[in-house]
Amino acid sequence: MEIITSLDNNHIKEISKLLQKKYRDEQNLFLVESYHLVEEAYKANLLKEVICVPESDPSYDIKTTYVSYDVLKKLTDTVTPQKIIGVVEKKKEEQVGNKVLILDNIQDPGNLGTLIRSSVAFNFDTVILSDDTVDIYNPKVIRSTEGMLFKINTIRKNLEEVLPILKEDNYYIYGTKVTGGKTLKTINNNHDKFGIIIGNEGNGIKDTTSSLCDEFIYIPINKECESLNAGISGSIIMYELGDK
Amino acid sequence: MEIITSLDNNHIKEISKLLQKKYRDEQNLFLVESYHLVEEAYKANLLKEVICVPESDPSYDIKTTYVSYDVLKKLTDTVTPQKIIGVVEKKKEEQVGNKVLILDNIQDPGNLGTLIRSSVAFNFDTVILSDDTVDIYNPKVIRSTEGMLFKINTIRKNLEEVLPILKEDNYYIYGTKVTGGKTLKTINNNHDKFGIIIGNEGNGIKDTTSSLCDEFIYIPINKECESLNAGISGSIIMYELGDK
Repeated sequence: MEIITSLDNNHIKEISKLLQKKYRDEQNLFLVESYHLVEEAYKANLLKEVICVPESDPSYDIKTTYVSYDVLKKLTDTVTPQKIIGVVEKKKEEQVGNKVLILDNIQDPGNLGTLIRSSVAFNFDTVILSDDTVDIYNPKVIRSTEGMLFKINTIRKNLEEVLPILKEDNYYIYGTKVTGGKTLKTINNNHDKFGIIIGNEGNGIKDTTSSLCDEFIYIPINKECESLNAGISGSIIMYELGDK
Repeated sequence: MEIITSLDNNHIKEISKLLQKKYRDEQNLFLVESYHLVEEAYKANLLKEVICVPESDPSYDIKTTYVSYDVLKKLTDTVTPQKIIGVVEKKKEEQVGNKVLILDNIQDPGNLGTLIRSSVAFNFDTVILSDDTVDIYNPKVIRSTEGMLFKINTIRKNLEEVLPILKEDNYYIYGTKVTGGKTLKTINNNHDKFGIIIGNEGNGIKDTTSSLCDEFIYIPINKECESLNAGISGSIIMYELGDK
């Protein structure tokens, strides 16, 4: 068994490039850390290679590269990672389902990951990300999804292009605002096909997106508080509308 | 006007110690970054000193120390901080109010900050943190609260000691579980004084805490998803019970 101990190893150098978006896009691959995420990638048939220290070999029927812990650490931005990393193929984008979360320029990786986790929890089937939303294959996003990335259809698109298509196909589009619109509790969602748009953490939904919404939802809050965290407000709305 | 440009300056060295919990506890002070948070600290009468580059002097009637941007950066864990930092006195713990969020060993600073922000949004008046919960004056917690830290009473206590006192005082204590208990939508909270306990991200509520709960709440989710993020589930429960 060969164990790679050099940070100059060419294969390791290639793999470590996947920490950058540019290379993830180029090679259609990304990295996951932890036994849990490697297992989820395997179950989703997307695991291409396992990189691990010898004693943590999970024995998948997949190419396995053994490395020292120091080398493994080079492949992650975590300070004390678990002793396994998966090289994973990006998921194929599928057809838009009926319950759609639409993200308009979400920038915080933790928020994006949490919203993906909550979308699975509340029975949404598709997440559409505006093309300026943070990369879904960013390591911090992956961690925050807690493996739920593999359980939902995600699509990256220009919202100005995709929203008119959805509307033509009879999707009802809810926008969100800090004030204005209908309060969440009074929304009686009887649409089989609908989308909920959550906007950027600082600026909310873009005007061009806003003009394509059928109705606006807002969550009443104490006036001492300017706004809710975007991951929180999106999750509360999905909680309310997900199973109606 | 003196502008400190040396990282070896004794005053700057003293202030930078406040990045560590040990010194925050010792000196009863903590640091906040950004104009917004400095302003909130000032309004709360807790701002003790401003540290800023000369051109960003907000002209408070408070001791102000001028520094170069390189020196200022030493006082934060942010990569590109705003050009102002506040040295702030820790808030006094007040009497427990009527609507209480109780955190049992929350470890993620982002979760704690978000829960504090949501607790203000949903009209809670007190947050009790178990003594093993992450430090509320951790810079990442402060940032995630978006200034809401100054708008709510926070108390750090051993839950095994404080819960029996609350129960004797007729507080109704809701626990949370991933499964089991009553579903959130069926809870009819008619208690004037109540507390909601949110547990640790990986392990939930401790057994010793659990045994002191009057009733358990759970949020039904898709079985594909193991659990919700602790900040999300806590916020959804506060959203439902906060104004009832």
